Amino acid sequence: MSETENNLVCVFCGSYDGNDPIYINAATALGRELVKSGYGLVYGGGTRGLMGRVARSVHDNNGQVVGIMPRALMSAEGCADEVGKMIVVESMHQRKSMMNDRASAFIALPGGFGTLEELLEITTWSLLSIHSKPVIVLNINGYYSALKDMVDTAVNAGFVSASNKNIVVFCDSPEDAVAAIKSYVPPSSRFGLNWEPKVPV
Amino acid sequence: MSETENNLVCVFCGSYDGNDPIYINAATALGRELVKSGYGLVYGGGTRGLMGRVARSVHDNNGQVVGIMPRALMSAEGCADEVGKMIVVESMHQRKSMMNDRASAFIALPGGFGTLEELLEITTWSLLSIHSKPVIVLNINGYYSALKDMVDTAVNAGFVSASNKNIVVFCDSPEDAVAAIKSYVPPSSRFGLNWEPKVPV
Ligand SMILES: [Mg+2]
Repeated sequence: MSETENNLVCVFCGSYDGNDPIYINAATALGRELVKSGYGLVYGGGTRGLMGRVARSVHDNNGQVVGIMPRALMSAEGCADEVGKMIVVESMHQRKSMMNDRASAFIALPGGFGTLEELLEITTWSLLSIHSKPVIVLNINGYYSALKDMVDTAVNAGFVSASNKNIVVFCDSPEDAVAAIKSYVPPSSRFGLNWEPKVPV
Repeated sequence: MSETENNLVCVFCGSYDGNDPIYINAATALGRELVKSGYGLVYGGGTRGLMGRVARSVHDNNGQVVGIMPRALMSAEGCADEVGKMIVVESMHQRKSMMNDRASAFIALPGGFGTLEELLEITTWSLLSIHSKPVIVLNINGYYSALKDMVDTAVNAGFVSASNKNIVVFCDSPEDAVAAIKSYVPPSSRFGLNWEPKVPV
C-alpha cells in the first residue's frame, strides 16, 4: 500500500441505482461526507449503479478513488478509470482481499446478493480476528432493517453472541455512517485466532 | 475429486447448537435425509454445534463425510476426523473453494455471520455463473424468514431481479430441502460471464 493511499474507506454497494432516488442521493451524499472527513474511496471499480455514484461523488469532491475490478466483470460493471486509479485482477477473491488490505473501514450502501455477501464476509473476517476495522451499514430508507432483524434472530437463537452483534453498526444517514468510523470499538469477545505466517483469507 | 466423492451436498451451518432443540433435531434429520436420498456430506469439518450434529448423523446413517478445515480454526471448531475424511487447509478461501469444487448442491442450516456469508457467497457465485448448483435454505423454525424479507426488499427496491431471487430456494423441513435438490432449476437470467482460463473465485 503506497503512502498516497492512506485513509481509504471501502464502500460495498449495488451495481444498480435502485428504483427510488433516495438511494442515488445517499450514495452521492456518502461520497461527499467521506471527502469532507478526509477519506478516499476503495471499491469494486464499476461505473454502474450506486458503485458509479459514490465513486463519481468522491472524485467530484476532489477525493481519491481506487477501484479493484475482476477482468471478467469489466463489461458487466463498467470500469471507472476516469474517476480514479483502476486495478484489474483475475478473481473475486483477489478483489476482496485487496480491498481489505487497503481499507481502514467498511461501509455498506444498498445492493444485492454480492453486496450482502461482501458485508457479511468482512463481518466474519472481523469475528475471526482477521481484521478489527469498523463495519458500518448505511440503513438508508430502512433498506437493511430486515438484515438487522436477521442478526437479532441469530442472537436470540444462540448462533451469534450479543456482544459480537456489535461488530456491525447500523446507521440511518451518510453523516452518521462516516462519524461511526471514528467512534467504532471492535467487540473484545471476538475469537483470538492465529493466522500464520500471514493472515490468509 | 475422486470417484468415491460423488453426490456430496455441502451444508453450511453454525458451530453452536442454538438454544432450542429444534435446531439440533433439524441438523440430525437433515443428515438422515441426505443419506436416504443417496447423498454424502462435504462441510467445514468441525465437531461443534450443528456442524458436528449433521456430520455425526450422516456418519451414523452410513453416509460419506468430507470435512475441510482451516488450520487456524481447528481448536475453535474441533476437527471431526472420527466421522469422515478431514482435509486441512490454510485459509477460509481455500475451504470455500474446495467445498464448492466437491459439492453438487448447497443447503444452509441455521448459523451465525459465517454461515450467512457462506450462503450469500455461493448465491453470488451462481449469479456470476461460477456455478449453477442448487442453493437451498432450510428455514427451520422461521430462522431465515428475516433473510427472506431482506431478499424481498432487495427485489422491491430494484437491486435484485425478481428472477434471480429464485437462485435461493427456501424450504421449511429437511425432507423438503433434500427434495428441492432434484427439482432445482437455475434461473436463466443470471450473468453469462467468462471466467478464463479456469473459474477463479
Ligand atoms: Mg465471501
